[in-house]
Amino acid sequence: VTVPACSLNTITVRSLTLHEVIEQAQRRGIAFIAPWRDLLEPLGAAEAGRMISEAGLGVSSLLRGGLFTAEDRAGRQAAIEHNLRAIDAAAALDAGCLVLVCGGIVGRDISGSRSMVRDGIEAVLPHAHEAGVRLAVEPLHPMMIADRSVITSLGEANSLAESIGDAGVGVVVDSYNVWWDVALDDEIRRAGRRILCVQLSDWVTPIEGELSSRGMIGDGCIDLAAILEATAEAGYVGPVEVEILSDEWWARPPDLVIETVLERFESCVR
Amino acid sequence: VTVPACSLNTITVRSLTLHEVIEQAQRRGIAFIAPWRDLLEPLGAAEAGRMISEAGLGVSSLLRGGLFTAEDRAGRQAAIEHNLRAIDAAAALDAGCLVLVCGGIVGRDISGSRSMVRDGIEAVLPHAHEAGVRLAVEPLHPMMIADRSVITSLGEANSLAESIGDAGVGVVVDSYNVWWDVALDDEIRRAGRRILCVQLSDWVTPIEGELSSRGMIGDGCIDLAAILEATAEAGYVGPVEVEILSDEWWARPPDLVIETVLERFESCVR
Repeated sequence: VTVPACSLNTITVRSLTLHEVIEQAQRRGIAFIAPWRDLLEPLGAAEAGRMISEAGLGVSSLLRGGLFTAEDRAGRQAAIEHNLRAIDAAAALDAGCLVLVCGGIVGRDISGSRSMVRDGIEAVLPHAHEAGVRLAVEPLHPMMIADRSVITSLGEANSLAESIGDAGVGVVVDSYNVWWDVALDDEIRRAGRRILCVQLSDWVTPIEGELSSRGMIGDGCIDLAAILEATAEAGYVGPVEVEILSDEWWARPPDLVIETVLERFESCVR
Repeated sequence: VTVPACSLNTITVRSLTLHEVIEQAQRRGIAFIAPWRDLLEPLGAAEAGRMISEAGLGVSSLLRGGLFTAEDRAGRQAAIEHNLRAIDAAAALDAGCLVLVCGGIVGRDISGSRSMVRDGIEAVLPHAHEAGVRLAVEPLHPMMIADRSVITSLGEANSLAESIGDAGVGVVVDSYNVWWDVALDDEIRRAGRRILCVQLSDWVTPIEGELSSRGMIGDGCIDLAAILEATAEAGYVGPVEVEILSDEWWARPPDLVIETVLERFESCVR
């Protein structure tokens, strides 16, 4: 079994600047990072891309585009503009993909909200092609449907990507979001080469706020090794991100967080 | 459109005694209740059943059986014994069904945990038949997989019930647990006459603890009327329970809670 490369998703240590993230990655031999866009803002994407590339680091994904759902046409148009700029940023970083967190429910209309997501992706796809950026639809855990994503399962993301039918649109497999699904193995197989990004965090309870209660890898009840085995069998050979949105871990020193991530990564992926 | 009867699930007003619940139901013209077992304990199921029946009330379901998953054989056997007594209690109440909250994950083994659920149901099914009690598998929201149920979607519950292949095993459709699912309409249709119980609460955020953050019907983003229309089209004509597990609503006076439930029920179901 080939051990995948670890990528540090910057939200895991969100108090660090880009400069500090790069310094940590170099010092600890982490070959990839996955930055969130707010981290790039002080420098701009072009300069950030130069820094990352000069440091010899790869960018597994850029977080994030999406949020296509909105009450009115102006809001949806603003989302599209925002995504066009996110695509430019992903191109400047030579990111493996732009992760799409598709947008929460509008009103009480799930199916209408899902249509907005499809329309949004199709609207920005030509620009993604020109920029050479792949779009990765991330199904989020169903507990985030109101806040973040009406795309709630890998099956749904696969169907969306298949029906758009463009090699520039794939999916994300994030352990935290999809592990509960009885169809997970089948859907990972179905996704196959459409898997553009793999992310890890663990499931711990209680949930104290649906957006920031994730567990450190190894602390929860997800069989992470099994998910990685399934994505590898499906053909995914890229880096694996550790992405832990957690009030608890955000309160700890970033040094300790990164040390823990690396130590656990070794034991989780084998 | 026939308006369904409202059933008061007693967890919604969990500070009340059975006597108080009955008094409230009679005074307000609520024809059905759905008691949790701890409410019956001071009296015993037989006496509780007599009281409820003499008050002219129906019992839409008894909460709850299940929790079949356990680390070891002794734990699983204890769960089966517990379910046999729950079946006896459901029979004593002439309950429409016994709701099964199937049990959370054991270790990191989802598929093994799911097998324990199936084995548990099959173990108690003969006794359920003798007692004339139908068992209703409740898929819970995927955020409760660690605490309460490895059965996380209506599709999964349908497959489980179909594969057991016994008219005595059906499913519960609880809006809170299943509303996020892109396959919901299809799975409600598939469930058809297997739907033994319908429950309502609403989705509100943030989630402050995955077990007790439910919203009052009408306060959240679930299209409850659409779900009730789908279950009616699938052939369900029984009472509809309002079941709100909520720290927020538990802190309010039961009188106010019940008034709000009844007022909202009228507007949600039409």
